Amino acid sequence: MTDNIAFQDVRSLKSMLQGGQITPSELVDTFAERIERHNGLSKAFITTTIDAAREEAATVSRGDLDRSPFAGIPYASKDLFDVQGVLTTAGSKVFHDRVAKTDAYAVAKLRSAQAISLGKTNLHEFAYGATGENEVYGTAVNAYDATRLAGGSSSGSAAAVAFGLVPAALGTDTGGSVRAPAALNGLVGLKPTIGRVPTSGVVPYCWTLDHVGLMTRTIADCADLLGIVAGYDASDSTSVNRPVDNYTEALSQEIAGVRVGIPRNFYYDRADDEILTALERVKQYLVSCGAKLVPVTFPDMEHSRTVSLTVQMPEALSAHSAYLQERGELYGADFRAGLALGQCILAEHYVKAKRFVEVYRQQTNKLFDDVDLILTPATPEIAQKVGTVKVRRNGIDEAVGNAITRYTTFFNMTGHPALTMPCGMHTEGLPIALQLVGRYFDEKTVLRTAHAIERSERFSIPRPKVDR
Amino acid sequence: MTDNIAFQDVRSLKSMLQGGQITPSELVDTFAERIERHNGLSKAFITTTIDAAREEAATVSRGDLDRSPFAGIPYASKDLFDVQGVLTTAGSKVFHDRVAKTDAYAVAKLRSAQAISLGKTNLHEFAYGATGENEVYGTAVNAYDATRLAGGSSSGSAAAVAFGLVPAALGTDTGGSVRAPAALNGLVGLKPTIGRVPTSGVVPYCWTLDHVGLMTRTIADCADLLGIVAGYDASDSTSVNRPVDNYTEALSQEIAGVRVGIPRNFYYDRADDEILTALERVKQYLVSCGAKLVPVTFPDMEHSRTVSLTVQMPEALSAHSAYLQERGELYGADFRAGLALGQCILAEHYVKAKRFVEVYRQQTNKLFDDVDLILTPATPEIAQKVGTVKVRRNGIDEAVGNAITRYTTFFNMTGHPALTMPCGMHTEGLPIALQLVGRYFDEKTVLRTAHAIERSERFSIPRPKVDR
Repeated sequence: MTDNIAFQDVRSLKSMLQGGQITPSELVDTFAERIERHNGLSKAFITTTIDAAREEAATVSRGDLDRSPFAGIPYASKDLFDVQGVLTTAGSKVFHDRVAKTDAYAVAKLRSAQAISLGKTNLHEFAYGATGENEVYGTAVNAYDATRLAGGSSSGSAAAVAFGLVPAALGTDTGGSVRAPAALNGLVGLKPTIGRVPTSGVVPYCWTLDHVGLMTRTIADCADLLGIVAGYDASDSTSVNRPVDNYTEALSQEIAGVRVGIPRNFYYDRADDEILTALERVKQYLVSCGAKLVPVTFPDMEHSRTVSLTVQMPEALSAHSAYLQERGELYGADFRAGLALGQCILAEHYVKAKRFVEVYRQQTNKLFDDVDLILTPATPEIAQKVGTVKVRRNGIDEAVGNAITRYTTFFNMTGHPALTMPCGMHTEGLPIALQLVGRYFDEKTVLRTAHAIERSERFSIPRPKVDR
Repeated sequence: MTDNIAFQDVRSLKSMLQGGQITPSELVDTFAERIERHNGLSKAFITTTIDAAREEAATVSRGDLDRSPFAGIPYASKDLFDVQGVLTTAGSKVFHDRVAKTDAYAVAKLRSAQAISLGKTNLHEFAYGATGENEVYGTAVNAYDATRLAGGSSSGSAAAVAFGLVPAALGTDTGGSVRAPAALNGLVGLKPTIGRVPTSGVVPYCWTLDHVGLMTRTIADCADLLGIVAGYDASDSTSVNRPVDNYTEALSQEIAGVRVGIPRNFYYDRADDEILTALERVKQYLVSCGAKLVPVTFPDMEHSRTVSLTVQMPEALSAHSAYLQERGELYGADFRAGLALGQCILAEHYVKAKRFVEVYRQQTNKLFDDVDLILTPATPEIAQKVGTVKVRRNGIDEAVGNAITRYTTFFNMTGHPALTMPCGMHTEGLPIALQLVGRYFDEKTVLRTAHAIERSERFSIPRPKVDR
C-alpha cells in the first residue's frame, strides 16, 4: 500500500479517504513507517509526533473529511513553527529545551482544519543559510540524489515531501528558503505576499523579510493550503487585514491574455544552460495558451544581497541578543559569525538598506503596470553535491548558498508573491524549476498560471526513486 | 479692514469672498501687509511669495470660489514643504540654495484646490527640536506674549496663524511639532493617522515617524483642509491607499455615546495644575453631551522618548549623510550634535527601538477595543519664556523641548490620529489645550468630538492682542 500513498498529492489522498480506501489513522501509520525507514538518510525530521498524530487522526470522522481539504491529511512544519507541547529547536542547540506553549498561527489554522501534524522538520540553524547543512541535526539530502543537497533553509520540509514522508509541509522564506529547496526537489513552493500569512508563533529570523511558505506536490494542493493558512493577526506587524481570496476557484480560469513579464536582465549569463532552455519551452507553451510575453527591464540587483544581509543581520541580532548572553556557546559557527557581522552594522546603514528595500519594492511594483506576472528561473543551478562550497559559472565563483537563492532573495524585499515549480529534468537527473512572481496579493494569477503549466505533460517530472 | 480679516477663520473668509465683500487679490494684499508689519517680531516667515500669490489670486474667479473650501484662501507652509520654484531652506543654512523643482503632495493638492500660498514658515532647523529656536532665521515667538516661545518645530506655522498672517498653515509632526505649537498658540493642530497625508516632497527628518500636520483656527477649517490634502502616493512608503472620508460631514454628528478614554497614568504629577483643571472641565462637558468617560491604563511610556530618538537620529543621519560630507560646516550646533549621536547608534539598537514602537502601537490599538477616543492634555506646560532651558515641576527638571512634546511624541510612534485644540486660558494669559487621540483612520470621530467641544463657549479663548 505504501507505494500507492507515499507520492500521492493531498487531493488524491483526500479522494482515497472519502472513498473509504484508507482511514486517517492508516494514513498516519503509513507515513510513520516511511519516516522510520527514510529519516536516517533524508534527515528530514528533527522531531516526530506520531503518537499525537494517531490520537488526532482517530478523532477525524468520515463526516469531518468534507470540512476542509486538509481534514485527515498529514503534514509537517519546519522546526521554527510552534506546535503546542512540542519542541521548537529552530535547528539549534540553543533551543534544545524550548517547548512551545501555543500553536503558531498557521499551525492553529491547520489544526482547526483537522490536518494532522506528523512533526517538525530540519533546517539550516535559525534559517540562516540556503544549503540546509546542520551540524547538530544532520544535513537533509535530495530525494533525487542523496549525495546532493536538499537546499535550505527549509531543507527538511523539502526532503519530507520529496521522500514521500508527508504530502505537504510548512516552511519559512526570508531569501528563498521555501522556493529554492522546493525547486531543487521537484516540488511546488510558494512564498505568498508579505503579510498574507501571519508569522506569529514562528521563531523570527528577520522580522521584516520573514514569510511563511508552503510546499506541496501540486498547484491545487498549494492553493488549498494557502486558503487555510492565509489570514490576519494583529499581533504580527507585517500582517495585513484583508479578505482571503478563493485560490482554489482561481485555478479553473484560463490564462489567455495574461501578460507575462520576461526580465531582459537577470544574471542569465551565470545560469545553467539547461535551466534556461527549459524556461524557453515554458515561454513557448505560455504563448500557445494565449499568454503574452512582455520584455521587462528588471531593477538593478547588484547590491541586493548586501542590502538583504544588512537588513537581516541586525534584525536577527536583535532577536538573539538575550540568548547570546545566556547561552552563546550553544550557537553553531555559521550563525554566530553572522550575528557578529550584525554587531558591526550601524543603524545608519540599516536605515539605508531599508531605503533600498523600499526603492526595490517601488521599482518592482512599477513593472506590474505592464504585466500581470514575471517569469524567471527558480535557481541558476540544480542541486549541488553535499559539501560544495562554491559554484563556478562563466569564470565567476559564487558561494553555493548565494547561488541557490540568487533569483529568490529579491522578492522577500519587495514582498511580492512568488511561486516555484518544476518544469523539467536536467540531464544530471535533478529537477529544473521556474519562478512566477505576481502582483501584491494576487496569488490567484500566480496559481492559475502555474496550474496551466502543470497541466501540460511536457513539464511533468518523474518521482524520485527513493525506495530502490 | 485688516482687523476684520486677520483673525477670521477660513469659512468666514470664504463667506466674505462669496458675498463679494472682498476679492482673493484683496485678501492677499491684506495678509501681505500684515506679514510686512508683524514678521519682524513674529519671525513667522522665512520666505514670502507675495508676487506669485497675487498672480494666483488674480486667476481665481467668482465661480471658482465654490470649487473647494480653500479656493482663493491664503495659507502658508512650513519651510520643509517643496513649493515649485521657491526655496526650501528647512530652517538651515545647509539648504540656503535649494530651490524646489516640484510641489510637495499636500502643496500640489492645495494648488489644485486654488488655495494661495503666501510663503514658507520658520522652524527648528530640519525640524529637530520643539522650541523653534533658530540661529539663522530667528526664533518665532508667541502671539499671546512675544517674550515667550511659539514652540516647535513648526514654530513659524503657529506664529503665522496666531499673529493673523494667514488663516491656515501646513506643518510637520514627528514628535508633536504641529500639535504642541498649535496648543501653545491657541490654535487647532492635527496630526492625521500615519499614511493619511503623503509626506512626498517634504524634506524628511525621520521617515517612519514624520507626519504632515495641519494648523487652523477652527475644527471645521481643519476638517476642510484634511479633505483636501489627504490621499495616497505610491512613492511614499508610509502612504496608505484607502478612500478619503468626508470629514466635514462628520462634524454634524452628535457625540452622545462616544466613549472617551481617560488615561489613569500620564505623568499628570508633572503638569501645570491649571491645565489639569481645564481638562476636568472638558471631561464634565463631554459627559453633559452624553459621552462616556472610561478610565484606561496607558502603555508604559518611561522609555518612549529614548525609543523615539533611537529611531529618529539614524533615520535623520541616513537622510543627511551626503550633505554632512559636502557642507557639514553649515549645520547648526544643535542638529549636528543630534546627528553625531545618530552615528553612535548600532543597527541592533535601532531594530530594538522599532520593536518597542510596534509594541506601543499594539498596546495603544488595544485600548481602542474599549474606547473611541483618548483625551489627554496637549502639553504639561504653557508656552515658556524664550531662552528657557529647563522646566522644573514637582522637583524634577525637564528640558523645555521635552516638556513641550511630552504628551504628543508617543502618538507619532503608534501612528494614531491626534488633534490639539484650545480649551481655556491660563492665569498667565497663555492658552491651555487638550489632545484627542482616535483610532487608525478615524479622524472623523476626533473631529466631531473636537467640534462639540469648540461649540461650547466655555472653552473659547480670546484673540491674541498682537495689534496693540
